[in-house]
Amino acid sequence: MKAPSSLEQLIQALKVLPGVGPKSASRMAYHLLQRDQGGAANLAHAIEYAIATLKHCRRCNTFTEGELCEICADEDRNHQQLCVVEMPTDLLMIEQTLAYHGLYFVLMGRLSPLDGIGPNEIALARLLERAVDGEVQEVVIATNFTVEGEATAHYLAELMRTRGLQVSRIARGLPVGGELEHVDPGTLAQALVERRKL
Amino acid sequence: MKAPSSLEQLIQALKVLPGVGPKSASRMAYHLLQRDQGGAANLAHAIEYAIATLKHCRRCNTFTEGELCEICADEDRNHQQLCVVEMPTDLLMIEQTLAYHGLYFVLMGRLSPLDGIGPNEIALARLLERAVDGEVQEVVIATNFTVEGEATAHYLAELMRTRGLQVSRIARGLPVGGELEHVDPGTLAQALVERRKL
Repeated sequence: MKAPSSLEQLIQALKVLPGVGPKSASRMAYHLLQRDQGGAANLAHAIEYAIATLKHCRRCNTFTEGELCEICADEDRNHQQLCVVEMPTDLLMIEQTLAYHGLYFVLMGRLSPLDGIGPNEIALARLLERAVDGEVQEVVIATNFTVEGEATAHYLAELMRTRGLQVSRIARGLPVGGELEHVDPGTLAQALVERRKL
Repeated sequence: MKAPSSLEQLIQALKVLPGVGPKSASRMAYHLLQRDQGGAANLAHAIEYAIATLKHCRRCNTFTEGELCEICADEDRNHQQLCVVEMPTDLLMIEQTLAYHGLYFVLMGRLSPLDGIGPNEIALARLLERAVDGEVQEVVIATNFTVEGEATAHYLAELMRTRGLQVSRIARGLPVGGELEHVDPGTLAQALVERRKL
């Protein structure tokens, strides 16, 4: 006795989701079939619709439904600054700050040799092509401050500098409202090393 | 600036999965679109296929692709025993033990008034109809030993007894190979209360 094959196929298919193993996949499958068939049908449709309609912005590589994303199509943005982020969510976070008015480039990942993600797996070649268009003056690297994000930042900075571009990195330090007592020693050490003249 | 609408729809749609909030849904959406479009298309297909093909077994209520599931269709099983479980996975677990040869009834849930799941939300009416078919002699209640599972068991036992059926409950106690030192006090207390004569 095994689960019916279409149920088994659904459980297997759910395991492509990140962080979902056999137990969660099985729980999800039963939930979808027993409690929320409407939501399940909607999910199937949303996946197919997203695959069909989303493509990468020709200039910045983020997901968009047109040729150019809203930001790249906006003539009022500062075309001399190019901010490099790992994922579209990072771009949205920076947009929320209203503190940056340049353009973006989305790598769609980070260098992570252990996971088999090298320069060819992220859009590095396209970024280089984009950065040397003559208009871009400064590249602001805003990858995460994780091991992989930092490695990616170092690698990018090296490539950009050899092409005569000005490169910067978003600052590390204490969070706004942060107290020295509650911050981790690594962050505090960086905040000391990267102190600014007043 | 917001995420493109088809991406936003996919993120919303993923939130129907149990245990998936906005952050995980967003991570899943980017993973599907960026790293595994094949897996995503396959998932959409598997959902649609499962919704289209799976129905409930006419007799035991588990998921099946035919009218009757394999077990209910098996003439060699003991038709006098009916084991009541919460979910199809529980049925599969019991089948793996090879210790039970009767038939099943799958509630597809448990009583949980706080979540709005009362007797009408689980297949209680169908279970009663099934249990009084004249063939069934003993009802083995194998709901989980959680608060909800226990409440369901008590409720079922009451209903069955008033209909003159013999009712039993799977045993609580120490696991096979279990040591007294490592078992929780609640289980040990139950094992003492429910001790068997030798």
